[in-house]
Amino acid sequence: MISKSNIKLIKSLQQKKLRDELNLFVVEGEKMVQESLQWKSEYLIVLYHTSDSTIGENFIKKEIMNLISEKELKQISSLQTPNKCLAVFGKWPYSDDKFPFYIALDGVQDPGNMGTIMRLADWFGVKKILCSKETVDCFNPKVVQATMGAIFRVDVEYVDLTETFEMLNLPIYGALLEGENIYSKPLTPKGILLLGNEGKGISENLQKSINFPISIPRFGQAESLNVSAAGAILLSEFFRNV
Amino acid sequence: MISKSNIKLIKSLQQKKLRDELNLFVVEGEKMVQESLQWKSEYLIVLYHTSDSTIGENFIKKEIMNLISEKELKQISSLQTPNKCLAVFGKWPYSDDKFPFYIALDGVQDPGNMGTIMRLADWFGVKKILCSKETVDCFNPKVVQATMGAIFRVDVEYVDLTETFEMLNLPIYGALLEGENIYSKPLTPKGILLLGNEGKGISENLQKSINFPISIPRFGQAESLNVSAAGAILLSEFFRNV
Repeated sequence: MISKSNIKLIKSLQQKKLRDELNLFVVEGEKMVQESLQWKSEYLIVLYHTSDSTIGENFIKKEIMNLISEKELKQISSLQTPNKCLAVFGKWPYSDDKFPFYIALDGVQDPGNMGTIMRLADWFGVKKILCSKETVDCFNPKVVQATMGAIFRVDVEYVDLTETFEMLNLPIYGALLEGENIYSKPLTPKGILLLGNEGKGISENLQKSINFPISIPRFGQAESLNVSAAGAILLSEFFRNV
Repeated sequence: MISKSNIKLIKSLQQKKLRDELNLFVVEGEKMVQESLQWKSEYLIVLYHTSDSTIGENFIKKEIMNLISEKELKQISSLQTPNKCLAVFGKWPYSDDKFPFYIALDGVQDPGNMGTIMRLADWFGVKKILCSKETVDCFNPKVVQATMGAIFRVDVEYVDLTETFEMLNLPIYGALLEGENIYSKPLTPKGILLLGNEGKGISENLQKSINFPISIPRFGQAESLNVSAAGAILLSEFFRNV
């Protein structure tokens, strides 16, 4: 059972404004909820599941588990095909640790790109992504689902990138259409890989911070690459000699 | 002006069945329509544009241009924010040429992934993508838009992959979670790069065709990579020593 006010509350978390105000966000589906419980169970607020879900079988805090009908799940889900369970989480604080290598995103807008980049970070062991304030919210439900669990392991911090770059004092590698050929000399994962917005690239202001403009050589005729595809290739170049 | 029957016809092209039956598909937005006219204008059937579109200014065949209102554009568009013009194209035949390097997709389902892979092919100069019949239709409106024009330059052919592999008689590189480390020895773009479905990977049957199982080394904790991100890294490895 779920009350009308809770249906309203959970649906409201599809909006960034409400997620920020309440410091809550939503995770959906058996696989993702399973990962969330494995990595961040201490931040779980409430777990809704249908009778055919196996999610809570090994979960101890029965008092925050709620059995609901499929119809109720459909009412609170942001997915076209809801998948057996939905969890509401409190956002966790991000680590203040300093790392040798970061990804920085300047205004990436597409939730799919954001999720893919977080998943790439998780694959290559990058612990933190720094985002300009214009970058899509990592707790957006589409981003959360696209991360395939990376959101529970990779920190995403929204900052003034210029200020943060100055503070971190690391070399900045900027992905530009005209930079040094990434295949010409080995890159090492020390510094910051800066990726720009899907249409506009890296903003003019931030381009001044770049120490090493880098480019992926083109062999065909496409004008540009998708930012997450470019990010994949660049991350691979940073890590291939590790 | 646009007739009610044409509104119905164009909207029906959002469905694969109708696209296949009529051999037509839709391209939207100034940038994409511009590219379509540059590369495949001979296959244009009809072009709809609003009064603020600059698309047709240099276009000669005025008889197939139709001025419509923004309201009418909204009625025929598959985009949330329609962008000034929409073109209906006849599908073109694909080339029968043989190439030294192909991408093969076994059941990729997500239109964004498909579009990104086509854009990657276009970037690296791969001329043809071979797809199993279960792979998402490349003329799906979401795929068309995600290709950013690659659809006009990269051939996509839907085939029985096992048969086609036998016919082409090229080495098959299969992207698997357990294969040879791609960073350990250089790859050359001669052969077929086979990528699998988002959830299930390469089907068991097709795995038998693989001559070289290859993998992207993992440094972090993600279980897997998005297929288009993995494709980006693998393509880069094939072309980085060219």
